[in-house]
Amino acid sequence: MPLRVYNVLTRRKEEFEPTQEGRVHMYVCGPTVYDHSHIGHAKLYVSMDTIVRYLRYQGYTVRYVQNITDVGHLLDTGEDRIMKGARRDRLEPMELVERYTRSYFKDMDALGVVRPDISPRASGHIPEQIALAQTLIDKGHAYEAGGSVYFDVSSWPEYGKLSGRRVDEMQSGARIAVLDEKRHPADFALWKKAEPEHILQWDSPWGRGYPGWHAECSVMAQKYLGQPFDIHGGGLENIFPHNEGELAQSEAAQGVPFANYWLLAGTLSLDGVKMSKSLGNTITIKEAVSRWRPLIIRAFMLSTHYRNPVDFSERAVQAAGKGWERINSAALRVRRRLGSAPDGDADPGFHDFSAAKRAEFLDHMDDDFNASAALGVLHEFTRGVNTLLGAAEEPTRGTLEEADGFYRQLAGDVLGILSEEVADSSSAEREAGLIELLIELRSQMRESASWAEADRVRARMKDLGVVLEDGPEGTTWRIAEEG
Amino acid sequence: MPLRVYNVLTRRKEEFEPTQEGRVHMYVCGPTVYDHSHIGHAKLYVSMDTIVRYLRYQGYTVRYVQNITDVGHLLDTGEDRIMKGARRDRLEPMELVERYTRSYFKDMDALGVVRPDISPRASGHIPEQIALAQTLIDKGHAYEAGGSVYFDVSSWPEYGKLSGRRVDEMQSGARIAVLDEKRHPADFALWKKAEPEHILQWDSPWGRGYPGWHAECSVMAQKYLGQPFDIHGGGLENIFPHNEGELAQSEAAQGVPFANYWLLAGTLSLDGVKMSKSLGNTITIKEAVSRWRPLIIRAFMLSTHYRNPVDFSERAVQAAGKGWERINSAALRVRRRLGSAPDGDADPGFHDFSAAKRAEFLDHMDDDFNASAALGVLHEFTRGVNTLLGAAEEPTRGTLEEADGFYRQLAGDVLGILSEEVADSSSAEREAGLIELLIELRSQMRESASWAEADRVRARMKDLGVVLEDGPEGTTWRIAEEG
Repeated sequence: MPLRVYNVLTRRKEEFEPTQEGRVHMYVCGPTVYDHSHIGHAKLYVSMDTIVRYLRYQGYTVRYVQNITDVGHLLDTGEDRIMKGARRDRLEPMELVERYTRSYFKDMDALGVVRPDISPRASGHIPEQIALAQTLIDKGHAYEAGGSVYFDVSSWPEYGKLSGRRVDEMQSGARIAVLDEKRHPADFALWKKAEPEHILQWDSPWGRGYPGWHAECSVMAQKYLGQPFDIHGGGLENIFPHNEGELAQSEAAQGVPFANYWLLAGTLSLDGVKMSKSLGNTITIKEAVSRWRPLIIRAFMLSTHYRNPVDFSERAVQAAGKGWERINSAALRVRRRLGSAPDGDADPGFHDFSAAKRAEFLDHMDDDFNASAALGVLHEFTRGVNTLLGAAEEPTRGTLEEADGFYRQLAGDVLGILSEEVADSSSAEREAGLIELLIELRSQMRESASWAEADRVRARMKDLGVVLEDGPEGTTWRIAEEG
Repeated sequence: MPLRVYNVLTRRKEEFEPTQEGRVHMYVCGPTVYDHSHIGHAKLYVSMDTIVRYLRYQGYTVRYVQNITDVGHLLDTGEDRIMKGARRDRLEPMELVERYTRSYFKDMDALGVVRPDISPRASGHIPEQIALAQTLIDKGHAYEAGGSVYFDVSSWPEYGKLSGRRVDEMQSGARIAVLDEKRHPADFALWKKAEPEHILQWDSPWGRGYPGWHAECSVMAQKYLGQPFDIHGGGLENIFPHNEGELAQSEAAQGVPFANYWLLAGTLSLDGVKMSKSLGNTITIKEAVSRWRPLIIRAFMLSTHYRNPVDFSERAVQAAGKGWERINSAALRVRRRLGSAPDGDADPGFHDFSAAKRAEFLDHMDDDFNASAALGVLHEFTRGVNTLLGAAEEPTRGTLEEADGFYRQLAGDVLGILSEEVADSSSAEREAGLIELLIELRSQMRESASWAEADRVRARMKDLGVVLEDGPEGTTWRIAEEG
């Protein structure tokens, strides 16, 4: 089945055909780095990351560009977010940018989000943004007023085609500040005149100022990906005015389409309520990963189709965590038994089962990256694996290798939810070895009826955070969740 | 004793007095990110990092700016390093920059080098560099020729004051390419005309081009630190033409001194030979840390005064490694015994010893950051700690806390050589706990004369990479070096 994607621009599922065979150029709007990222960002970037991972799994060479907004993204009050953050943290704006850029990537690393190939910064592309504004003035799609430059929406009949909003509806939009110098309330800034106290400012043909928020994405996408490029990703909450503005100014300036496919992720709410700083109901990624393992947060984000909204709640994350544990503990048991498995090819029955589940998994991913359904297949596969591991007959090395490969490629490479313990890490292996040795010594104690001593070992291990569970298949262990 | 630093600019040791009380503004030339960093970079940035750490330990608020050179640093052949790297790796230049910037920070993280507060990029400061060239033209210190702009060294009598080179000696310098359009062979580019095939180029008043290498450091230092700022760090190998050029253009443009103190680190050679790509005798940091623990590399770099050259050899690193092990294993034993130590204040004799050693350590650091001598004091302190730990009388919690604090602050915060095992890490603590439990079980086996079983435990642990050593003070353990 060929890959089909839901294109927000055309409002239908389309077969995916990249501009250059075998290559995908993809742009996603990155964070404004004035504070720690919250779990809404986790939903967005985990969604986009899984798309990138799947394209790469399918053999595409993906160039993934995601910007860092470090200037020009204003609050509704007109205040620059970076300057607000700098005042709050008593830092030079670029120190603030550095701090929260690192914080962002640290969070993303924890969530298994693969780094973009290029992370360009808005402040690093001032000449390009000035050139865009100049081109649009030259072509009659923008005008200068009072030291600022505005895009003239009335000059571009297609304005609104991405978000479906119509210009005449925007006449008295509550969220659009009506500035006298703008010809139409929906006109948006390509360049803003800077007040003297605005630290982030540069020379331009229109005086000192700074770029409008949408300008950066237009110029950085074009610079690093060309125009048109293949996929423009992002979050649905930014479709207007940000994505709409990008699209209009890029197409008006270059005279060719901006991006061929628009893939936008649904938003995240918190216990049924929109997350918002003013309501005080935000959870940062750092807070979330202090409570749950980062990969459980990731699995939770993938448990709903990326286009759908998702509601974050204690109960829902716990449910995702249970599912995640089932998959990972089966994958871990497979890995541990590989070392001592009897030689032999894969069992034909298991091989057929595994191939069928793989095909189902890929079909779901080919259907607009339906990771949620693919995760369901992973659970079905895991039930098969548990049956295999519980069977009287010891599975062969070939069978276990087949299961291990399934987990590594589909749970690991594609969905990114395979724990480090399974995926790699020499110190984790050493620790696992030490634990297995202790379990062996404890078994010997129990065999020789030294019950008190065996219990003491178990208690000591529990104090260290290693929980032993005795079951019909022997003793298993897990690291206790912290906190 | 007040802090005294050797100022390369004045060629003498001076008492350090920052411009603003309690604050230090410091700039260090960062890497050109076209390849993996080598151990020469490790020497430079570990040296500078230890200076920053010590200033912070002394209570200064340090703003540490270190740039990323991603455009304009040309090879002797005139080829741009970034473009050469991009061709080699078949990447878009900015993908290359992203790849090697990450590689650089990953290496630095491994070496315990604290991240700079701001890491600005040359390509992100094009307007500022154009403005610098324009200012210098306006003030008669630069001229345009053939689409490029050159600094006119004859217009600036102080040119050469940092490196001690005189302009008349440079007339026929072998390393200075003589271009017809330059008025004097020592004149250097502030802006270079770009050939059409040069991908990294921008508009300027003089046509399409890119900035000269030195320009970025001048504008980024001034932008984020002001002028004059306190400390300009770097490596002696870049004193000419890079630092000299920066200094001249910054002072000529602004009419005030550039930086008050120039602290330049000596170079690193390899088995007595200058490391160079053309000779093929380079070792990357990644190669080095695959052979030795990163903190051993760090300790080696600190074993010579930062201003002196250092020769990297197998033997010398091994010697540094032995010293590092002694310090860290004593610090680890202190930590492990803290948990079960008897209550009580610090032993007065040990307290006096510790205070005296701390004073010596700080005196050495105050003497132009003599980390090598401070490391010697750490060894003397460690001998005292080993005597303490080997004594018949159990040291009190107060005594052990004093030793622990000494290691954490001076070996940890200041020199940055304290291993993670000692410094932190819950998983390392859990692993240490598991190992201690195994050692206990093994002791019981030996006490009940189950020799074979005890040997088996020891052998199994060795297979896992945990080496047990039985000694008069009981059994100690260590993680085997890999490889």
